[in-house]
Amino acid sequence: MEKFKKNERVVALIKILSDNPNQVITLNRFSELLNAAKSTISEDISAARKIIECLALGEIETIPGALGGVKYKPILTLEQSLEFLKRLCTELKDPSRIIPGSFIYMSDVLGNADQVATIGRIFASCFKEKNADYIVTIETKGITPAIMTARAMNIPLVIARTGNRVTEGTTISVNYVSGSKKIQTMSVSKRSIKEGSKVILIDDFMKAGSTIKGLKDLMSEFKAEVVGTGVIMSTAEPDHKVIDDYVSLLILNDVDETSKTISIIPGIK
Amino acid sequence: MEKFKKNERVVALIKILSDNPNQVITLNRFSELLNAAKSTISEDISAARKIIECLALGEIETIPGALGGVKYKPILTLEQSLEFLKRLCTELKDPSRIIPGSFIYMSDVLGNADQVATIGRIFASCFKEKNADYIVTIETKGITPAIMTARAMNIPLVIARTGNRVTEGTTISVNYVSGSKKIQTMSVSKRSIKEGSKVILIDDFMKAGSTIKGLKDLMSEFKAEVVGTGVIMSTAEPDHKVIDDYVSLLILNDVDETSKTISIIPGIK
Repeated sequence: MEKFKKNERVVALIKILSDNPNQVITLNRFSELLNAAKSTISEDISAARKIIECLALGEIETIPGALGGVKYKPILTLEQSLEFLKRLCTELKDPSRIIPGSFIYMSDVLGNADQVATIGRIFASCFKEKNADYIVTIETKGITPAIMTARAMNIPLVIARTGNRVTEGTTISVNYVSGSKKIQTMSVSKRSIKEGSKVILIDDFMKAGSTIKGLKDLMSEFKAEVVGTGVIMSTAEPDHKVIDDYVSLLILNDVDETSKTISIIPGIK
Repeated sequence: MEKFKKNERVVALIKILSDNPNQVITLNRFSELLNAAKSTISEDISAARKIIECLALGEIETIPGALGGVKYKPILTLEQSLEFLKRLCTELKDPSRIIPGSFIYMSDVLGNADQVATIGRIFASCFKEKNADYIVTIETKGITPAIMTARAMNIPLVIARTGNRVTEGTTISVNYVSGSKKIQTMSVSKRSIKEGSKVILIDDFMKAGSTIKGLKDLMSEFKAEVVGTGVIMSTAEPDHKVIDDYVSLLILNDVDETSKTISIIPGIK
């Protein structure tokens, strides 16, 4: 196998780490793949770390010991997150987004893979110390940011479904009061979450918090602990939500259908 | 601003391209970001291309002209795709996946961000010449592979929903016969697809193809042309599907509940 030059090895290394966020890759693996001694790989990693940190493209963490190696965390700084959220606010304030009933059209944002990938990295940055085992969301609109958070954190995504589906096998279900005040059922496949796990809940929108409350109740059926909750947007009113302790990337203060104005600000600081 | 060494610049360059698949990034942008002359950046790009192609990590394409630059395509080779699909077959053949009614439990695969990211790259490789404007899927289970395909191709994802939702604004709906022989409605927000667009349909599972057929009918309401259809798994029976011309990554030949065996093979060759 051909020998690579230093810069070629470093490029390959950063590409592989970057394609596999939050996964430990051993020095042995790199050593095989790049046909170089472990000591050489170690130096390459130092070079990669320097540039990644200098340009604020994330973090490279070293895991010591026999099973050790390195992993790449696609973390955003608070400054980078705020810069993104301010641009998103500007985009969302466009009056043509107002939908009768004072809703905001944001399906295009949730279908923009680039934007939801960044949102996933912001959530991953917020919850990086939580040692979570799963990301959990409820169909439909939370799924794209949730899978991107799962990717950034390298943990599985579990999707709760409204009603029961034959392709899920045995399910556990709870009833909850939806945003539109209807009693609904949400279910999760019994085999999808191990008892005693730590989970992070991700959703697109929160008003009073009843859907998130439903997800929390469902998690307690799995004896799972909710260690974090993240929503892309929450409304300023009602001030009192049925859940506390959540991260909201954006706060929606007001949608005025008459004057066609939307007031929305970044929610993290 | 500090000057970077060659290997540092190449690392940064590959990291940025890799985080922004299929997006044209101009030499000017790199030149500013990395504080180096455009001629230097050109050489760095050649170095990056060499290693990316040598290790089969994708392709770097040069776009000439005033608006030109480079873009990174996260393409997988047929060999890499098959290797992944063979591993996936082994995983899916596990008898504990059989669900009464001869279904296979695969929600865990659809919630594994790493696996769906690879699936997205395979679809992007299959459809790279199609010049599509949108990826379209139907809730729920196709969403995770669909957003990853959208990310790899750098085009928006549009999600058709069963029934009508207040947060979508004005929608266009069609009726279709679902896999369970029920007449259902699927809708897409009117503003989400421009007339005359080219779309690629992505879904998780196809039996006779009636859901895909419904999506096709819905697209014709938008005067959109379906230029490709990709499903993760299709059944060998019925042999005659209501649609033709689709890519199926896996073919499900048989699920035998009595002997607890599943026969499944890669569908692309």
